[in-house]
Amino acid sequence: MTDDHLYHVDGELVPADEATVSVDDRGFRYGDAAFETLRAYGGTLFAWDAHVDRLERTCDLLSLDHGLAPDDLRARIDETLAANGLADAYVRLSITRGVQPGKLTPQPAVDPTVVVYVKPLPRGGLEGESVWDGPATVATVETRRIPDQAILAAAKTHNYLNGILARAELDAGTDEALMCDREGRLTEGATSNLFFVRDGALYTPTTDGPVLPGITREIVLELARRADIEVREGRYEPADVSDADEAFLTNRTWELRPIATLDGRDIGGGPVTERLSRLYDERVEQSCYSD
Amino acid sequence: MTDDHLYHVDGELVPADEATVSVDDRGFRYGDAAFETLRAYGGTLFAWDAHVDRLERTCDLLSLDHGLAPDDLRARIDETLAANGLADAYVRLSITRGVQPGKLTPQPAVDPTVVVYVKPLPRGGLEGESVWDGPATVATVETRRIPDQAILAAAKTHNYLNGILARAELDAGTDEALMCDREGRLTEGATSNLFFVRDGALYTPTTDGPVLPGITREIVLELARRADIEVREGRYEPADVSDADEAFLTNRTWELRPIATLDGRDIGGGPVTERLSRLYDERVEQSCYSD
Repeated sequence: MTDDHLYHVDGELVPADEATVSVDDRGFRYGDAAFETLRAYGGTLFAWDAHVDRLERTCDLLSLDHGLAPDDLRARIDETLAANGLADAYVRLSITRGVQPGKLTPQPAVDPTVVVYVKPLPRGGLEGESVWDGPATVATVETRRIPDQAILAAAKTHNYLNGILARAELDAGTDEALMCDREGRLTEGATSNLFFVRDGALYTPTTDGPVLPGITREIVLELARRADIEVREGRYEPADVSDADEAFLTNRTWELRPIATLDGRDIGGGPVTERLSRLYDERVEQSCYSD
Repeated sequence: MTDDHLYHVDGELVPADEATVSVDDRGFRYGDAAFETLRAYGGTLFAWDAHVDRLERTCDLLSLDHGLAPDDLRARIDETLAANGLADAYVRLSITRGVQPGKLTPQPAVDPTVVVYVKPLPRGGLEGESVWDGPATVATVETRRIPDQAILAAAKTHNYLNGILARAELDAGTDEALMCDREGRLTEGATSNLFFVRDGALYTPTTDGPVLPGITREIVLELARRADIEVREGRYEPADVSDADEAFLTNRTWELRPIATLDGRDIGGGPVTERLSRLYDERVEQSCYSD
């Protein structure tokens, strides 16, 4: 699908070489845009309502009143998946503040630019293989997570340099960079949330700190509570993870990915990680294949 | 020049409706790009060497090895000014990390996207009028400046949401938002550096904190030292400015712009601001009109 790969830009399906935005678009000029990363399994978008809610939260935080109905956005995604003949896919939906008169100060009247990008991503899960090659090697980095007082971590935007700088610190072969806040407490990876297991209980950094409320994270927490696994959201340090019995990362693409090593110390998955992975796969099955 | 306005994108002069970048460009996807805002006076770029130095510093901080010689960049700007028939102009030069395989982690091999945008900006200065309508009304905001540990303020990038969120807090009619660091010390405006005058001495927040080393700021400091005006760079609070005898903002576009009010309290310019403005105008005269 390289040659006839279609994008959905500003209301139209276009080939890759026409999938462009104006250099005056605030999405390009300032990274002034909201986005969501989704997955389609068997042709169905997983956890669509949760993505819509978070997208709206991001847009609220940016005072970006795009005026588009969720059904309209979903139709654009479905159209893009169909045009590319994809049932199992990675999906990225971006909404920018578009082109506006004036300079930095955002104007209330918005003519948004909407971009949908899809690519094949085979389902892992019950019957398949995970998309990742193996458990993640992870390192803590010097780059600190932007504090909520500067930009709320709950806003998922095109301002991604904080994560890029974190990743740029890594040696080749290391998969993810874990950022701490300024007080040295763990927040999240550049594109993932962190979990660890100690004495059968599940721990994850609280979203009271600068941590993106990942949708996979939320689902894992809900599945753990339903399975009577003790859940604690708090503030932790790298040593808490190094000493853990199990640890894993979550995001839309990876789903649950065990952490092989943190800063060179072995951790690995284990029974709780495996159980939650299985419950997650079953949730996908129920949500996307039940009809 | 609305209809036949030409941009320079990726090596070519193109009309506005063709001035686009791929939605896969990291400049769009992540704001992964360096930029400079410059001015041309009488057809000459002012302080070009200082802009080149800062651009290189930004690219170093982003590990963005674009491989373009300063002369090449300058030629693109000069070509764009000539094509648009402009001698007095605002100029924006952006270099993105371009399109790369993989996702967030930046790759060392860069095929950069270079964008030059120009627009008419009459010279103020010795014989003209300032570009601003009048002294600035300024307000301090709740949004805190991103700390250097997360993204160095010395990097001038397309990640501009911090300043946008600061500006979004302002009432209509307020010109600039002053951000403090997390400890409540003044840093800078969304697009400007801050100066104030007390008992004849010139004060400005230190770039040891999260403050962009503005090129206009540097020139003003140099001019002040040469004029035997006492200069202090330190950490100050809003009350230090409210109580000042004079205060002003600097950036490429505004040059020196007096602060009329901060949070509703009158400050205004004065003899030191006027003297430094005059010295700045003379510097522009010497640099751009001396041949």
